Amino acid sequence: MTWNEALARCAETCGSFYLYAESGLARSAEAMKNAFPGADLLYSVKCNPHPLVLKTMAAHGLGADAASSVEVKRALGAGFSPEQIFYSAPGKTRDDIASTLRSCTIAADSLGEVQRIAKTAQDMAGGDMPDGPVGIGLRINPAFSFDGGEGGPSKFGIDEEQALAAVSEGLPEGVAVRGLHVHLKSQETDAAKIAAYWERVLAMAERFRAALGKLAFVNLGSGIGLRGTGGMPVDIKFLSGALEKLAGRFHKVCPETRILLESGRWLTGTNGVYASRVADRKVSRGRTYIILESTLGGFLRPCLVPFALQCSGGKSPAGCEPLFSSPDAFSVRALQGGPAEEIVTITGSLCTAADVIAEDVPMPHLECGDLVIIGSAGAYGATLSPSAFSSLPKAREFFLTVDGQLLQ
Amino acid sequence: MTWNEALARCAETCGSFYLYAESGLARSAEAMKNAFPGADLLYSVKCNPHPLVLKTMAAHGLGADAASSVEVKRALGAGFSPEQIFYSAPGKTRDDIASTLRSCTIAADSLGEVQRIAKTAQDMAGGDMPDGPVGIGLRINPAFSFDGGEGGPSKFGIDEEQALAAVSEGLPEGVAVRGLHVHLKSQETDAAKIAAYWERVLAMAERFRAALGKLAFVNLGSGIGLRGTGGMPVDIKFLSGALEKLAGRFHKVCPETRILLESGRWLTGTNGVYASRVADRKVSRGRTYIILESTLGGFLRPCLVPFALQCSGGKSPAGCEPLFSSPDAFSVRALQGGPAEEIVTITGSLCTAADVIAEDVPMPHLECGDLVIIGSAGAYGATLSPSAFSSLPKAREFFLTVDGQLLQ
Repeated sequence: MTWNEALARCAETCGSFYLYAESGLARSAEAMKNAFPGADLLYSVKCNPHPLVLKTMAAHGLGADAASSVEVKRALGAGFSPEQIFYSAPGKTRDDIASTLRSCTIAADSLGEVQRIAKTAQDMAGGDMPDGPVGIGLRINPAFSFDGGEGGPSKFGIDEEQALAAVSEGLPEGVAVRGLHVHLKSQETDAAKIAAYWERVLAMAERFRAALGKLAFVNLGSGIGLRGTGGMPVDIKFLSGALEKLAGRFHKVCPETRILLESGRWLTGTNGVYASRVADRKVSRGRTYIILESTLGGFLRPCLVPFALQCSGGKSPAGCEPLFSSPDAFSVRALQGGPAEEIVTITGSLCTAADVIAEDVPMPHLECGDLVIIGSAGAYGATLSPSAFSSLPKAREFFLTVDGQLLQ
Repeated sequence: MTWNEALARCAETCGSFYLYAESGLARSAEAMKNAFPGADLLYSVKCNPHPLVLKTMAAHGLGADAASSVEVKRALGAGFSPEQIFYSAPGKTRDDIASTLRSCTIAADSLGEVQRIAKTAQDMAGGDMPDGPVGIGLRINPAFSFDGGEGGPSKFGIDEEQALAAVSEGLPEGVAVRGLHVHLKSQETDAAKIAAYWERVLAMAERFRAALGKLAFVNLGSGIGLRGTGGMPVDIKFLSGALEKLAGRFHKVCPETRILLESGRWLTGTNGVYASRVADRKVSRGRTYIILESTLGGFLRPCLVPFALQCSGGKSPAGCEPLFSSPDAFSVRALQGGPAEEIVTITGSLCTAADVIAEDVPMPHLECGDLVIIGSAGAYGATLSPSAFSSLPKAREFFLTVDGQLLQ
């Protein structure tokens, strides 16, 4: 089955849905592996935790960056091994810690959390817990900002200076710091800025390694952005060369340290679409409205674009990930293709004026039952949408395999 | 059980939850009935479709304003009779129409939809369909704006001039227009503006009544806003007097026409809270962070306030209902009470910087396990939040009855 055949088939069974492409996911995963052969890549589960998306990433040898204890379980279920799963999030509860201690590497997000992990490990000692201290990561809030200025306060991680002091004074019995995790920005499209940030993180890792004696891993986070409809893609070739050079230098000082890189949106964003059938069309005082069966509740992010522009008075506001990236982040097209014949406003069927996908866009003539397709829905789509709003049917999720099978 | 006891009890069983108060819901419903004895009140199901909230509204004699076919079913299930249920939304599908034709009054949102209703009624004729034409409402996009200017284009309803022409020419066989529905703005807090808008809608209803011969109902929608934390409440007493006067005049021309008023947020908004336990606290470079178990995914709207302010560069942006009302729409307090002891930033545990509830707010000293309570969560809370984000546990919903029972 081709992509367009799959879209039409899905539309026969439901009014609004997501469709993900295994071929594109595989291509993106391989492209990233080829670009960064010296790094271990982690897939950020939160951007799309669909079981078949996870399975694809695991099958291509990526590890998993989990942001909750349930995401750790989902990753295990999809075939990632405990050694490949890294769990980093602020505010882990005792249950979160207890349920994941054996099945991943936890990055502690505060010194309080280090204590809680140590206490939990102590409580769980014996049974099937391995002997010796639990290896953990530390999420660090560096002394520098993404752009190289001074580091500010953050809800994420432990301030670098606090962490270095704690490491030097000795952490509680039962835990041993094996690595570091830093993430300061998503969706950066300037490769030189990303490389400069990576360089700073590696220099910071050297400072920790000096205090710790050895360091099993440093997770640079990412920053690698996905271009908007009209924007330039991030220069991956430049980043590839930059990381090779930086890693070469870093490994002279820290030969044992694995470099981890995360990606979510870059891997999945463009490899999924959201689609909704036209429920009605109307002309009101000269403006043509195409009303889809479900938009805001099915796929929230495109509806936050007009909201952000309204708040900013029309100027392109700064990104606020993952809610809002840029005004041109989402493409809109009709399944039937063909040339644009009219200028329309595309909205959903909710009783709210905020339920608008695109205003005054050129489209072919659309009638009830036609399918409208919104691009870049592979990341932060189904999971970041209020699917219960107005009790509309929840958008279903489909997956087209490389050999043309349509799965759910 | 008192309100605070109920909050503490809920927090023993889950980390993040909503709690609704029957006493407050009942008080609000009775206050609105007392203010508008000449009108039939409809509860806007979409703002909180919890079965016990619906049951409370039905028990106090309100009707239901449903925005989807499933909301019609939920209203029926909660005890509203078909005569009390009005279904208005753009883009109803054939299934939506077929499944609700017998169980409510449908307001057609376009002339195309009028045709589809007529066709569906014809297809379903016989069986348990009553004889004669199906009585419908028309959602009208008036020739005037909320503030009295010229009416613009809208995704909602049929342009007044189109609708009047269609009514005069005769609608398709099988349907008969029984009433009108207008709704132009939510969350207006200026009572004089609301009254002026109501006057214009009633004048419009007279024009339709002249064309139709008789008119069973006109639904004014509402507009009645809920004040922000610091704002003045809408002057309901003024509105009460205004409607009495307007209705008196209107009924001289249209004696048979029931006046319907909708309310959602005014009835439920302040009668529910969202609460989440403190998962961690940390001081980062002089700023204290309180990290709750779940915020953005559990209750999205407070997190859209910092987003809106960021987009607007700090100026208070215009409302964009139901996503954003005002910067002071949500209060934050600690269950334990007591005086403010520190200035904190309250965030959730998601791995996203957008997951912030309140920045630099005074609070008592909070430790892990303490409960933080966010007010005005009775409307557009649970249903307008992306509960699947990062696979955190879904916030549960509790209901405290007037006799102190805690239900789910």
